Amino acid sequence: MKNIVIDMGGTRVKLALLEGDKIVSQTIIPAHSQGGGILKTLSGIEEAIIEMMGSESISFIDSIGFSLPGIIDTKNKKILSINDKYVDGVGFDFSGWAKKTFNAALYMENDARAALLGEWQHGAGKGIDNIVMITLGTGIGGAAFIEGRLLHGKHFQAGCLGGHFTIDFKGEMCNCGNRGCAESIASSWAIPSLARKMGFNKENVDYKMLFDAMSEGDAIAKEILDICIEAWSACAVNLIHAYDPEIIIIGGGVMNSADYILPKIEERVNKYSWTPWGKVKVEKASSGDDAALYGMNCICTGTYKI
Amino acid sequence: MKNIVIDMGGTRVKLALLEGDKIVSQTIIPAHSQGGGILKTLSGIEEAIIEMMGSESISFIDSIGFSLPGIIDTKNKKILSINDKYVDGVGFDFSGWAKKTFNAALYMENDARAALLGEWQHGAGKGIDNIVMITLGTGIGGAAFIEGRLLHGKHFQAGCLGGHFTIDFKGEMCNCGNRGCAESIASSWAIPSLARKMGFNKENVDYKMLFDAMSEGDAIAKEILDICIEAWSACAVNLIHAYDPEIIIIGGGVMNSADYILPKIEERVNKYSWTPWGKVKVEKASSGDDAALYGMNCICTGTYKI
Repeated sequence: MKNIVIDMGGTRVKLALLEGDKIVSQTIIPAHSQGGGILKTLSGIEEAIIEMMGSESISFIDSIGFSLPGIIDTKNKKILSINDKYVDGVGFDFSGWAKKTFNAALYMENDARAALLGEWQHGAGKGIDNIVMITLGTGIGGAAFIEGRLLHGKHFQAGCLGGHFTIDFKGEMCNCGNRGCAESIASSWAIPSLARKMGFNKENVDYKMLFDAMSEGDAIAKEILDICIEAWSACAVNLIHAYDPEIIIIGGGVMNSADYILPKIEERVNKYSWTPWGKVKVEKASSGDDAALYGMNCICTGTYKI
Repeated sequence: MKNIVIDMGGTRVKLALLEGDKIVSQTIIPAHSQGGGILKTLSGIEEAIIEMMGSESISFIDSIGFSLPGIIDTKNKKILSINDKYVDGVGFDFSGWAKKTFNAALYMENDARAALLGEWQHGAGKGIDNIVMITLGTGIGGAAFIEGRLLHGKHFQAGCLGGHFTIDFKGEMCNCGNRGCAESIASSWAIPSLARKMGFNKENVDYKMLFDAMSEGDAIAKEILDICIEAWSACAVNLIHAYDPEIIIIGGGVMNSADYILPKIEERVNKYSWTPWGKVKVEKASSGDDAALYGMNCICTGTYKI
């Protein structure tokens, strides 16, 4: 069985050809995500697929799986809502495109859910049927997998909004319209504002800068990172109280500093979460950049049945 | 089909005999919940059931459904953990008791989940397959019903801990061991502490006293209630972001003042929750005290399949 899986990022699109659950070919092409560009991106994808198939006929492709940011209707295979990126993809008939272009079946899923499935098949969540994943990046993303099923909810939003649980109900506005979300306190987009407030007066503050400053003894940088760790931990406790998982898997760029962050989050999670049955495991995502690709392949092969 | 449903409260036990989905007889007996007393309570239940059956043989009873506070293993029909009440019920073989005493099948469910099922069958959630319920009482309880299924999670805790999502990550300790839970700010047990802090200096402060004081023009009482409404709203927004429901049903003693509370919560929920598809309905529980009885009957009759 041959499947093509595609991870549509904001700046680049990753494609892989798999036979069974093994990647046999992989490529990256530029995305045309800003202000739309879905058709232009798809035309690049078509070329890349044909190239990946090499001398083989494209008629050997069984299915194509798209991992996308935004709210995805996995039943009707449509993008319902997408923030900023690929806005002209909303309502686009991806199934029709896959059928017409490659005579292939089509699957779609939100990228955080796809990454969770990848961790479930190959990574930190292997063999575990109750998983919450958190991705600490530009924002705070995530997904929930309960009793062996991805949680979707009525409008395909369930499980993905963990970064937008209020953890400070008197706090400042988040860009989602809510108040005091974990993401509005401790994410790449929010960190310059927190840094300014704490008196860390540098331009273009990001997590790397803060970790570097802390390692050189900067007390304010440490204080800012401590607040972020408190916020991420509160976020994790809320997700545990919401979904009752066995494991929390944390991924995203910030996890480059996992050695510092992870034990602290684990300590707070164990201290504050109400789990009379025992302790939730807190682990770093281990499937790396390919998690969403492997996850989509789980769907394409039927290892995970949608 | 005749079923007996039993709602085990801390001070009283409510029993009903139903034929199909109609209550044909109902009674209330005292509970022996403190420091255990499950056997003593069950012996009272046995007598009450025999009395409710009247001249009919108890052999006509098809099944018995228990609604209980605490963490219930609905698959193995066991109490896993229970706070203070009926502690000797942990691990007790209810199925064996029902089989031996009445030759009946046995079902068990957490009381908040049972109440949600009651609202789904007869109340504010009738015909709706994505429901979150919040009960504002001594604590803040609740349950989640997603895509037509009660959410349980790995350890049967999922959906029930909405009152213990952190909404103030720098806040005070909750009695669950977490920090800044909605319940630790705005519940019957927490309100005396909030009142004291705000300078409302009376003994035995409860919600009724605060509503009475506010209606007599007491500005501090109003301020305290406003904080509670903010906390309940943040709790509701978090539950919406967690479970993606169509409706939030709010019940519990505080809803005696629903006319004042409900529109304010609804306004805040609509303002702060991220629901690009539309608006979540915010409604008062309408099945009243019998919700858990009707809910258990849904399980006994198979209207809701566990």
